[in-house]
Amino acid sequence: MNHLLTEIPPLDKASGKKAEDHLNQLTKPPGSLGRMEDIAVKIAEITGNPFPAAEPPGILVFAADHGIAEEGISAFPSEVTALMAANFAAGGAAINVFARMIDARLKVADIGIKEEKQDPGVENCRIRNGTGNFLKEKAMTAEEAESAILTGKRLAAELIDAGVRCLIPGEMGIGNTTSAAALTAAITGKDPGEVTGKGTGITAEAQEKKANLIRKALTMHNPDRSNAVELLSAAGGLEIAGMCGAIIAAAEHRVPVLLDGFICTAAACLAVLINPDIKGYLIAGHQSEEPGHKTALEWLGLKPLLQLQLRLGEGSGAAIAYPIIKGSVRMLSEMATFEKAGINVT
Amino acid sequence: MNHLLTEIPPLDKASGKKAEDHLNQLTKPPGSLGRMEDIAVKIAEITGNPFPAAEPPGILVFAADHGIAEEGISAFPSEVTALMAANFAAGGAAINVFARMIDARLKVADIGIKEEKQDPGVENCRIRNGTGNFLKEKAMTAEEAESAILTGKRLAAELIDAGVRCLIPGEMGIGNTTSAAALTAAITGKDPGEVTGKGTGITAEAQEKKANLIRKALTMHNPDRSNAVELLSAAGGLEIAGMCGAIIAAAEHRVPVLLDGFICTAAACLAVLINPDIKGYLIAGHQSEEPGHKTALEWLGLKPLLQLQLRLGEGSGAAIAYPIIKGSVRMLSEMATFEKAGINVT
Repeated sequence: MNHLLTEIPPLDKASGKKAEDHLNQLTKPPGSLGRMEDIAVKIAEITGNPFPAAEPPGILVFAADHGIAEEGISAFPSEVTALMAANFAAGGAAINVFARMIDARLKVADIGIKEEKQDPGVENCRIRNGTGNFLKEKAMTAEEAESAILTGKRLAAELIDAGVRCLIPGEMGIGNTTSAAALTAAITGKDPGEVTGKGTGITAEAQEKKANLIRKALTMHNPDRSNAVELLSAAGGLEIAGMCGAIIAAAEHRVPVLLDGFICTAAACLAVLINPDIKGYLIAGHQSEEPGHKTALEWLGLKPLLQLQLRLGEGSGAAIAYPIIKGSVRMLSEMATFEKAGINVT
Repeated sequence: MNHLLTEIPPLDKASGKKAEDHLNQLTKPPGSLGRMEDIAVKIAEITGNPFPAAEPPGILVFAADHGIAEEGISAFPSEVTALMAANFAAGGAAINVFARMIDARLKVADIGIKEEKQDPGVENCRIRNGTGNFLKEKAMTAEEAESAILTGKRLAAELIDAGVRCLIPGEMGIGNTTSAAALTAAITGKDPGEVTGKGTGITAEAQEKKANLIRKALTMHNPDRSNAVELLSAAGGLEIAGMCGAIIAAAEHRVPVLLDGFICTAAACLAVLINPDIKGYLIAGHQSEEPGHKTALEWLGLKPLLQLQLRLGEGSGAAIAYPIIKGSVRMLSEMATFEKAGINVT
């Protein structure tokens, strides 16, 4: 999988140390801004700049369909994926509202919607019309998985080239909590029952069916659990592969990645399988209501910024967490030092 | 204390119900925006508008000194209060950075700084030059406490008249976690040792001294623990009285109050003693590292939006939480319904 990434630069600990020293001279009790100070230091390390920028943010939403949806594991039919992509293009979804609020660049990519007709407001990067039903066949070929990853890399690199300094990967795909649960179970070694949730709102019975189906599929395809491409090929989805590629590109470009919910975090786990150094570039925006999200965040060693019982996806939770990132970085750059304010605290 | 408030309007449950019904028609799974949906409904109830506004926010920072600081219960000397007020006026403090970030109106009021010389950038509302050392005498007279509350009411009403739609009370006052701990212990009935923390960063020994001193003072002054004016008179401080008044004014004007840390929440407890109906107007921005903050939030029945290990005050934690409020209200007003987006989910 070497062709999937160029090189992940090491975190710049010296810039982090400079940021930390500066934080201790600002007009506040040392450490009194808690986790915001940790974030400021982390972004200094990521960017290699003791006074980094994290503006503007860029939200990259990948939309794709899942063959597994025909098994009745979602509260919504596959058709909703295309309709919601059109809603993104028209500006009416939650992620549009939050993107406007945080002054984010927003790009929506169709990386594998099932519906033939495409919305002109959605970037056409379709690899195939939805994945295969992974209870019966592989979700996609290895080549398709790699193409989807490379597509995600390209789109994120374009946003970064256009000036984006914090990447928020988002998704839309009816059925995709089932893929995320399969990937998370495979990667972390947990039983599918422990990482399977209610998704958009299914019954306890459907949830049990969803877990059983994942157990069966993982046994059938038996992917190498350390191989991101084999895992994507076995369980999907195309939007998860796209997010995985976007995360890789951000790390290659020294841009922090603000993770959204369960699906996005499953994509981050895949990126970390491809190169463990990517872990240092990730910030967890929130912890969703999906039980597997906590498992995936723990596997990555990340502590979420928010816990607001969100379970929407699209990048929405990360967008809501973004002002914490912005405030942390601005605090570092804009606050007066005790010396400048003429306050002698020695 | 009837003259301290006019009338607290009841929450408008009908507007809340309309907001809730609308939320369930928006293009997202019902309930999938978790606590943000609860906030949208709460602000509809507060404002009496199913599609409320919460912009712009207004931050009202009260600065005052505490006679108790001479007992060595703070890591900083009293002089820092005036210096930090000047820093607020110059735009160099954390609250300035965050106020700019959230497009807030920011007003800084000197309601009782000890230092004679005043900064021209700070509104002069001084009731007295710092409180008395409440280990030896009352912090202030009942008349002074009432004047400070009425001053806070006036300043908040001015901000609201100028268009502010979400009030963030903030404070600066060396020694004020000691007053807040005394008030919180008296109001909740907890032992001072349980609600006393490290403030700006004192040793464990100083923390024990701080708790002992509060025990002794509460025994000596023996205030009526349900009387906000007697409590303020016994333990201070002037900035807490000002915040209490500001919170009352917001509720009178049907404007939501976003609470910051321990000191601010102690002021909210006093406001609720004056009229329990004020509770419905409060939203907890975050939970700080001060142990008494959790106690005060529980007494108010509030769950914090953020837990980022902040312990700065000034209104900073509430300012960082504000985009969650803004996003919740915008989501309610700006998202498309399933019908409008042409998505049939029945």
